[in-house]
Amino acid sequence: MDNRPIGVFDSGLGGLTFVKELKTIMPNEDIVFFGDTGRVPYGTRSRETIEMYARQDEEFLLSKDVKIIVAACGTVSSVAPNTADDLPVDFLGVVKPTAKAAVNATKNGKIGVLGTPATIKSGAYNKELLKLDRTLSITGVECPLFVPLVEEGLINRDDQITILAAERYLKSIISAGADTVILGCTHYPLIASIIGDILGEGVTLISAGGATAHECKSIIEQKGLQTDRTTGGSYSYYVTDRPENFANTAKLFLQEEVSEAVSRVHVG
Amino acid sequence: MDNRPIGVFDSGLGGLTFVKELKTIMPNEDIVFFGDTGRVPYGTRSRETIEMYARQDEEFLLSKDVKIIVAACGTVSSVAPNTADDLPVDFLGVVKPTAKAAVNATKNGKIGVLGTPATIKSGAYNKELLKLDRTLSITGVECPLFVPLVEEGLINRDDQITILAAERYLKSIISAGADTVILGCTHYPLIASIIGDILGEGVTLISAGGATAHECKSIIEQKGLQTDRTTGGSYSYYVTDRPENFANTAKLFLQEEVSEAVSRVHVG
Repeated sequence: MDNRPIGVFDSGLGGLTFVKELKTIMPNEDIVFFGDTGRVPYGTRSRETIEMYARQDEEFLLSKDVKIIVAACGTVSSVAPNTADDLPVDFLGVVKPTAKAAVNATKNGKIGVLGTPATIKSGAYNKELLKLDRTLSITGVECPLFVPLVEEGLINRDDQITILAAERYLKSIISAGADTVILGCTHYPLIASIIGDILGEGVTLISAGGATAHECKSIIEQKGLQTDRTTGGSYSYYVTDRPENFANTAKLFLQEEVSEAVSRVHVG
Repeated sequence: MDNRPIGVFDSGLGGLTFVKELKTIMPNEDIVFFGDTGRVPYGTRSRETIEMYARQDEEFLLSKDVKIIVAACGTVSSVAPNTADDLPVDFLGVVKPTAKAAVNATKNGKIGVLGTPATIKSGAYNKELLKLDRTLSITGVECPLFVPLVEEGLINRDDQITILAAERYLKSIISAGADTVILGCTHYPLIASIIGDILGEGVTLISAGGATAHECKSIIEQKGLQTDRTTGGSYSYYVTDRPENFANTAKLFLQEEVSEAVSRVHVG
């Protein structure tokens, strides 16, 4: 039994798609969310920069006395999981649980991976997928425009700019004949309908947030770290840039109104 | 006479479009360029964050013993020109010279301004333009997708994604009947042909880099700060993220090969 909060961080606010899933399956847990909105995006930066940022983000969550840290960020999970080696609490990234869910879903053994340039360049999904099944055929695609497109709110199913960008990125995955596609960045679920329309009905989309929330629950239960409260958990949100726009963007990712206050903090 | 280098900084590498112009009109001057590629983009961040970054960038250039500092960055010039108040050397942003060039170019008194969200929200171009002519009618448009589109290299005249984004952003400027449009971010000259095609032949595009290079030359000459060397100047490039991709991207903005070394530095 452990009543400390679950710590979650992301380079921006996309990680709230994970928080949404976690709130649903672990409603009594407290959650501290940290979004590094002052330094987003991480996905186009170098490994050294991403590692430095990840360590600072993890330190911030430790200062909030969390019982587990989740990097709800495809880029950190792919590029800098080693930053968690010295942490005094459990650490969970999105790559392992998402890869597992994709391997369970595929029928033809052909998997596509969409991610930021840093995620794809890291090869983390390839490595994790091949660890589970050496015979898989994997097609990874860097999608640098998806984060800015989502952040500008161009997420409607008929938005031509996003459709064109998605058609461009999905070409090689369609040629490869993948039946399962990983949305390897926590921003991407917001344009899942556009991606799904282009790929067609026979293709399963695996969103990093959902798979990771289930893995988080199972770790907490295995280690006996559940809260013993029987009332709904409380939520705290911290960002590194101005908090004014937080409520609107958070609503987009959480798909509900945010009533809690958001605080601005400095890290690094 | 002053043989110290000219210091130039930008949030990323777009400021090299200014360096290109400056090299042409002041070929004997040494230039130190600093691109904050580890923290780009500035244009979607808050005023406080941009001011903090600008001060750190200026301090870095001072450590290189420059004789003048140019913020070749529409965002810093618009949002954080006050950070230059305590500098021991002259400071020049892109807003004033570019506004002057636009006022000289317009015939119907209707001017459009394209910029990052931070630049447009700051109202800096409006203020500067109205200072020069109170009767102007000005239409400012935030263009958050242009920087990622340029950085992904989608700059060909027939690139549909960039054309659609530009059509979206230019709608209100076309309705307003502007005959002069300011490219208020040093990335935008790379997609000037796409913007020009949509606006049509009767509209003059004013690029921040060219106007600012001429203003820089005139300040240096007025204050007697020219070099007395008669041979070509030398150039140093510093970035805050990995320098590996520098040569390719720099070639895009400078429109020539970069033979000089680039160094990675940490600021802040």
